[in-house]
Amino acid sequence: MTTEPISPSPYSRDLDPVAANYAPLTPLSFLTRAASVYPQRLAWIHGERQATYAQFAARCRRLASALARHGIGAGDTVAIMASNIPAMLESHYGVPMTGAVLNALNIRLDSASLAFMLEHGEAKVLLTDREFAPVIEAALTLLKQNGRSVFVIDIDDPEYDGPGNRLGEIEYESFLETGDPEYVSRGPVHEWDAIALNYTSGTTGNPKAVVYHHRGAYLLAMGNLLAWNMTAAPVYLWTLPMFHCNGWCFPWTLSAVGGTHVCLRRVEATAIFRAITRHRVTHLCGAPIVLSLLVNAPDRPRFEHTVEIMTAASAPPSSVIAAMEEMGFHVTHVYGLTEVYGPATVCDWHPEWNLLPAAERAKKKARQGVNYAVLEGLMVADPETMQPCPADGTTLGEVMMRGNIVMKGYLKNPQATEEAFRDGWFHTGDLAVVHPDGYIELKDRSKDIIISGGENVSTIEVEDVLYRHPAVLDAAVVARPDEKWGETACAFICLKPTAGATTSDEVIAFCRQNMAGFKVPKTVVFGELPRTSTGKIQKHLLRERARQL
Amino acid sequence: MTTEPISPSPYSRDLDPVAANYAPLTPLSFLTRAASVYPQRLAWIHGERQATYAQFAARCRRLASALARHGIGAGDTVAIMASNIPAMLESHYGVPMTGAVLNALNIRLDSASLAFMLEHGEAKVLLTDREFAPVIEAALTLLKQNGRSVFVIDIDDPEYDGPGNRLGEIEYESFLETGDPEYVSRGPVHEWDAIALNYTSGTTGNPKAVVYHHRGAYLLAMGNLLAWNMTAAPVYLWTLPMFHCNGWCFPWTLSAVGGTHVCLRRVEATAIFRAITRHRVTHLCGAPIVLSLLVNAPDRPRFEHTVEIMTAASAPPSSVIAAMEEMGFHVTHVYGLTEVYGPATVCDWHPEWNLLPAAERAKKKARQGVNYAVLEGLMVADPETMQPCPADGTTLGEVMMRGNIVMKGYLKNPQATEEAFRDGWFHTGDLAVVHPDGYIELKDRSKDIIISGGENVSTIEVEDVLYRHPAVLDAAVVARPDEKWGETACAFICLKPTAGATTSDEVIAFCRQNMAGFKVPKTVVFGELPRTSTGKIQKHLLRERARQL
Repeated sequence: MTTEPISPSPYSRDLDPVAANYAPLTPLSFLTRAASVYPQRLAWIHGERQATYAQFAARCRRLASALARHGIGAGDTVAIMASNIPAMLESHYGVPMTGAVLNALNIRLDSASLAFMLEHGEAKVLLTDREFAPVIEAALTLLKQNGRSVFVIDIDDPEYDGPGNRLGEIEYESFLETGDPEYVSRGPVHEWDAIALNYTSGTTGNPKAVVYHHRGAYLLAMGNLLAWNMTAAPVYLWTLPMFHCNGWCFPWTLSAVGGTHVCLRRVEATAIFRAITRHRVTHLCGAPIVLSLLVNAPDRPRFEHTVEIMTAASAPPSSVIAAMEEMGFHVTHVYGLTEVYGPATVCDWHPEWNLLPAAERAKKKARQGVNYAVLEGLMVADPETMQPCPADGTTLGEVMMRGNIVMKGYLKNPQATEEAFRDGWFHTGDLAVVHPDGYIELKDRSKDIIISGGENVSTIEVEDVLYRHPAVLDAAVVARPDEKWGETACAFICLKPTAGATTSDEVIAFCRQNMAGFKVPKTVVFGELPRTSTGKIQKHLLRERARQL
Repeated sequence: MTTEPISPSPYSRDLDPVAANYAPLTPLSFLTRAASVYPQRLAWIHGERQATYAQFAARCRRLASALARHGIGAGDTVAIMASNIPAMLESHYGVPMTGAVLNALNIRLDSASLAFMLEHGEAKVLLTDREFAPVIEAALTLLKQNGRSVFVIDIDDPEYDGPGNRLGEIEYESFLETGDPEYVSRGPVHEWDAIALNYTSGTTGNPKAVVYHHRGAYLLAMGNLLAWNMTAAPVYLWTLPMFHCNGWCFPWTLSAVGGTHVCLRRVEATAIFRAITRHRVTHLCGAPIVLSLLVNAPDRPRFEHTVEIMTAASAPPSSVIAAMEEMGFHVTHVYGLTEVYGPATVCDWHPEWNLLPAAERAKKKARQGVNYAVLEGLMVADPETMQPCPADGTTLGEVMMRGNIVMKGYLKNPQATEEAFRDGWFHTGDLAVVHPDGYIELKDRSKDIIISGGENVSTIEVEDVLYRHPAVLDAAVVARPDEKWGETACAFICLKPTAGATTSDEVIAFCRQNMAGFKVPKTVVFGELPRTSTGKIQKHLLRERARQL
């Protein structure tokens, strides 16, 4: 060892970042490269329309340019209400190219929720598909009442021939025409700059506004490739809503490997099967309800090639996995939350597990698994002491995550951000065990949330509406297992003594007027609610009762 | 559009990086994950020895801990002189875990060059394989003369049974035993922190010390996966020296996909063929000389599985590619430099090219191609005007690169760093054309450098030695194409009028005493040297003459 006096390391001198050796990480760079390397390869297919990567990139630049000419730039929000169509894909590039932030809205939401999001997110532009004109029109009216105006661009998709007025100043294709196909991207300045805004309905019922940055989107785009063993030129079918965590970042992942997006307005078994065969789809994602849709479809096909399907969160039962495999699907199980850009854990498959009996294999696959390669930390721990739970398969703890694919935080909600990030970890609110091999398995969702058809339903939000019904004294909403939807909301109601005769149908109709359809309870049970001595409703008892219904 | 007064974007408030959502990018995280997810999978195989990922990670932590106990920490340099053995792999993790920087030395170098590097790089510790004891002993003597001491750890590899003394205080395995297998990594604090130091012999003959950071190593590790379409659990054979750009970052890439390293002390056809069959190797890298070695071997096998081989820089001739494919290899062509962590471009293959006749295919494959997905910028441009060359396949320009896999810079050489990074791009010094499809093709190496057996030979360095010969008046060294070595040094010498009879053999013997064997000219030509009117030697004329010899 040298015994020289301590001096600053030479590695800290004259080696600072400069233009030649530092660029902000951004998934936008994948598109630049794909357009240059595979200009003639198909970027997207939508019905009879299609675009090569050269065309796709030019359309994204046109969108960016047109938005920039309308004053959109760094830190602005651009919202979109659309299903999985090219305009939605192009917004994932065109919007951040201006430095702005994409807010993809849940197309199943009600006008009040949408108005809240447009207001809270301060959207300056809204792109909206004609199909959603009624609910958007109502939302815009609400916004106007609050003194806010939004520049509206209609998307008149040739693949949609249903009703719906145009609401805005200009149609999407005409808007693109006003843009410059040679526009030079202005975003991001820093890789920490926001790229997307996604509202999540947390357990408290207040939608939280999750902010993603370019760095995280770049890394999860890569992480998806690793988790799914994706190689060059996949053909990806859009069965997962792009408004869910930006389609788990797959709009960006695909550009990194020059893949082809197959768009899909509506998730229907026949359309999915047809697309898989016609375009030789190699990959698709979906909530368990998509698997169940395919398995229960009449005329199930048997594909000539293996189709990789990634599904999230709740474990597909072994019978579903077996039926999927029979058709030619191979199922990968992931888990994540809006706060981590989509999937953050994967049930990373060990080849030796293929030798296990089907039931054992399904048990392995039912686990949420291990951290994505781009998620630096994953643990199941006691949220009070932050002590990791033993890997015994039985001790319940809260799933904690840390690393570069954890959100920037909640927009305009520093308190919620701090709370979520306390003790240096993102607290998922989900409860799990750790198996002896280190794989985690969720045992309970965060106490209250209901997942119905892949959508989060906040019980407190539903309860708030119920409490507004004049006959309701006490209300509690819990999940009820449902074969088709995974879960549905089940309402337990104690009526006021003064209330006249009140029926389930009446309560359900009242809910329907006051919330998005997917949140409406499918079951209503009347009676006294069980409470603790301190007066808290004992939801675990209600969940048990709902299960037994 | 809203007409509100400009206010700071809400995205810039309360959304700063914290422990939960930011971690420095480092390839060390891949090992942490691999050891946790695939603890029982083989990390490396070396002759009869092997280690699982759990064991490999524990050994790396032991190395880090033992180094830390010897005072090694952030910004220190740890050098290693070893072939592709486990200690070399483990140093790629154990050294940076302490915050220190790994300097892998070229095992073919002479003692003077090694002494220069140990001195310039300020190595505090040197790990050295017994095989290289003579040259290292001489280098250490030189160092001592300059008043520097280094803590030496001998590696006594059971797979080596040749001569060579132990030089140091302790043997590698005993050193590991002094370390704590539960050591917690201290590196890096920032992702911009240095992870490795690699000396390159540039055209000027002064070895430059290229510094890599954790961010770049993480990204190139990922970039290799994309460029090569690697999926889970590859089996990688170490035919590429790990001292070359840290084995193109593959020591780190493999951990990201839980792959198995097959170590190899010596690059010999029989050993390579045996390893491929025995371990079912899926991937290997090598300079063109490795391909030529395999193609020209007696008893060429025909593998039952496809073996991916990545080769760099000079294009393998179509006959070699055909012969490789016959054996079961699939060739991927990449290009890079020490300054970009190894490969930075890849001849990204379009499936439709498979339909071309063999000669056409070889022409496509001979091109250096397009930027890696993790290299943000690649262009061929006029170095004076920085104007990109037209994509016409004929206009010659300099290859320029920019992005996150460009080095931090040259250690203790801000002038060279600035020069290399001028105008916001890394100037490779290599000349290329751009084809109409955007693929680049090298047309000339940076003017002087010779690549012999995959090793850079600086002509100026060789000339310096020649000029020291008492009979030499004038000397110029250029590359001469060589079937076996790719290129060899060819010396043109003008003798002093006073010189007596001087033979080629005499000059070669003189060189052999004064430089590493691979740098010694294989050909010596006597005569007048062609010069320009301003007195500069016209090397392009000499190159032409060497070609025709």
